[in-house]
Amino acid sequence: MTEASICTIGDEILIGQVVDTNSAGIAKELGKAGIMVREMVSVGDEHQAICDTLNSALAKSDIVIVTGGLGPTKDDVTKKVIYELSGSTGYVTDSRQLDIIHRILASRGLDVLGRNRQQASVPDGCRVIPNRLGTAPVMAVTFPEERYGHKAALYSLPGVPFEALGAMDDVISDIRSSFSLSEIRHKTIMTYGIAESALAERISGWESALPPCVRLAYLPDPLKGVALRMSVYGNADNADEIFARETAGLRAILGDAIYAEEEKTLQQVTGELLKTSGKTVSTAESCTGGMIASLIASVPGASEYFKGSVVSYAVEVKENVLGVPESIVSGYGVVSAECVAAMAEGVRRLTGTDFSVATSGIAGPGGGTEEAPVGTVWVGVSSGNRTETMKFSFRNDRIRNMERFAASALDALRKFIISEINYCK
Amino acid sequence: MTEASICTIGDEILIGQVVDTNSAGIAKELGKAGIMVREMVSVGDEHQAICDTLNSALAKSDIVIVTGGLGPTKDDVTKKVIYELSGSTGYVTDSRQLDIIHRILASRGLDVLGRNRQQASVPDGCRVIPNRLGTAPVMAVTFPEERYGHKAALYSLPGVPFEALGAMDDVISDIRSSFSLSEIRHKTIMTYGIAESALAERISGWESALPPCVRLAYLPDPLKGVALRMSVYGNADNADEIFARETAGLRAILGDAIYAEEEKTLQQVTGELLKTSGKTVSTAESCTGGMIASLIASVPGASEYFKGSVVSYAVEVKENVLGVPESIVSGYGVVSAECVAAMAEGVRRLTGTDFSVATSGIAGPGGGTEEAPVGTVWVGVSSGNRTETMKFSFRNDRIRNMERFAASALDALRKFIISEINYCK
Repeated sequence: MTEASICTIGDEILIGQVVDTNSAGIAKELGKAGIMVREMVSVGDEHQAICDTLNSALAKSDIVIVTGGLGPTKDDVTKKVIYELSGSTGYVTDSRQLDIIHRILASRGLDVLGRNRQQASVPDGCRVIPNRLGTAPVMAVTFPEERYGHKAALYSLPGVPFEALGAMDDVISDIRSSFSLSEIRHKTIMTYGIAESALAERISGWESALPPCVRLAYLPDPLKGVALRMSVYGNADNADEIFARETAGLRAILGDAIYAEEEKTLQQVTGELLKTSGKTVSTAESCTGGMIASLIASVPGASEYFKGSVVSYAVEVKENVLGVPESIVSGYGVVSAECVAAMAEGVRRLTGTDFSVATSGIAGPGGGTEEAPVGTVWVGVSSGNRTETMKFSFRNDRIRNMERFAASALDALRKFIISEINYCK
Repeated sequence: MTEASICTIGDEILIGQVVDTNSAGIAKELGKAGIMVREMVSVGDEHQAICDTLNSALAKSDIVIVTGGLGPTKDDVTKKVIYELSGSTGYVTDSRQLDIIHRILASRGLDVLGRNRQQASVPDGCRVIPNRLGTAPVMAVTFPEERYGHKAALYSLPGVPFEALGAMDDVISDIRSSFSLSEIRHKTIMTYGIAESALAERISGWESALPPCVRLAYLPDPLKGVALRMSVYGNADNADEIFARETAGLRAILGDAIYAEEEKTLQQVTGELLKTSGKTVSTAESCTGGMIASLIASVPGASEYFKGSVVSYAVEVKENVLGVPESIVSGYGVVSAECVAAMAEGVRRLTGTDFSVATSGIAGPGGGTEEAPVGTVWVGVSSGNRTETMKFSFRNDRIRNMERFAASALDALRKFIISEINYCK
């Protein structure tokens, strides 16, 4: 199996000011193409460290992908290392990339500066894959077997994440032209509402009966729940059959805790339910502060089913805009079943939607009572037929609590929409 | 200078399904304590790969921090590797960690399962630092000089990010007890509204006049703008003086594009302005879908100044809830100066706040016209005195466009509040 190392370069990564998201994105693309990532390494902007890291990666792996160190304000240390590794004797300007640089800067109404033009200049020992999305091109170097004991290829990508990922299709085509790639097949089952260790207990019988060619991974995420990923390595002709059988087995155990049988988010699945049933939704948010709304809106095409929201952070907005009766606020408090029910009904009336979801809780770090400690959220879901409320408890920091509140509300909305659609059939 | 390597373990990282945020968080804490991170490495859940990686890291660095591979559903491969590296002869149960496990599970109303109890069992050749936030403890191993040619220490942290970071204070205390740490001083200046390459041109004279002991990094982030980080390595007694002088130099060039002289977010700074002036704010959002509201709400104590929002995704919500006149919608369209002005004024009236901010734009990928292509956003800011509107253009994917729209709106709000407060003085 063709193996790859991913190297990211930048002092900003080593001091922790920037989280490296490039490596994960690149790894996903490599995995889809059947290339197995064996390690990821991040080093600083130092010539020797980069040299050592790339040489060591090329000795271990067939493919080495490098990102970072190529921005207009960087020292171009990476480019110098590639100059040396490729045995270059000078720099040449790639006219295709220079055209792109002129076009991009013109579209932003900017002049082409010396440091922009410099980005089209590359070591003459490497091949250029033009970067249509940005100013720094991809540089590729192929090494003969005698250099590292096996055929090896190095690809240097721009550091801007959306440019680095945008270049991966071209990079993988280039890899295919000189390596024969085998297969990795993945099947991901998305679950929500069962904690990782409880989930492991629930499915332990199923898990231990998995065929030996299948590897299982638990992938928890605050906004997505726990994804269960089955992987079949090598050329498994019957992978589809295995996946179908094992997915059915999981369904029988987990029921509607499974919200998708592929990598999807709760907001995508909820959006699809609304779209196919021709229904609309709105949100009324207190402690989640608009996060549910922005998750719903982040899905392309959301305007077909998402009408709008009221973030009622202050009591008077709950009362004056959403019409929550003062008697509920004074009688039950704002973190109560009664309040989220009134909020959900209020926003549905106000925006004229078929469904709505509402939240009120205590994200912390301050606030909270004995009855509703930090981490408590009430969720209300409403339709023309009925309104349901439920309480969830978490124990995290403020932002993580807001995320768990928002995801739990989306999951409650998803289940409510399914039950209402089935009821109306 | 004491150097560290950070190793993260997990197939889920290598296949790109999980972004490693632990390394960045750990690196920040190490940097504050004067420990320089020289590399970060991620490897899969394979015994040999973990062994090789840890041995190689211990040979290079004084301190090695490992995370991952310790969750209740993991194979505990890391623990086995630590067993071998530490020359252990058996496992012992750490009673302090077992107590914590019982307490945590009881507080969630859960039974202590075998796999939970197993987490308090550790190789007898390592020291335990209890993890108060979760069930898996920190394991520490100190190696004498003869093992790797220098004194070395290994710390194995739980994989859950908030537990790993929560353990860092105790880990650093432990490191201090056996290593004498030198200093790295950082000063971060937050800027918004100037692209990285334009910023580099603007401050190139200032940058080339920096004293040689200062290193400068450009750290772009879609929600925070470009952070400029100056670093002084070693025991620089005059670091504060240098930072003060250079910051004043930057202020003279960049003016109000600087929004903070420490690591802060636009929503924190805007919140502080509101809090100290005793003013309140609301938002009216179309294309940002509630993201500005949730950013404002993510700051602890936001309820002091944040009243609420209306997400008016549909035209009828703009008209019926925010009171945008139909004549504006039909005459100018919803992506217009007139519309965001009416939205900002509408939400301010509705929620009774001193300030408000509104957005309407095209996040893409679909939609857009010649006048307002994908990536265009109109922002409106309003107070009792006046309403201002402005247009911004970006060229990204949907979610990144929403983030840039939200950050630009927050920055516009920040500048507007400052000018209004100064005007009223």
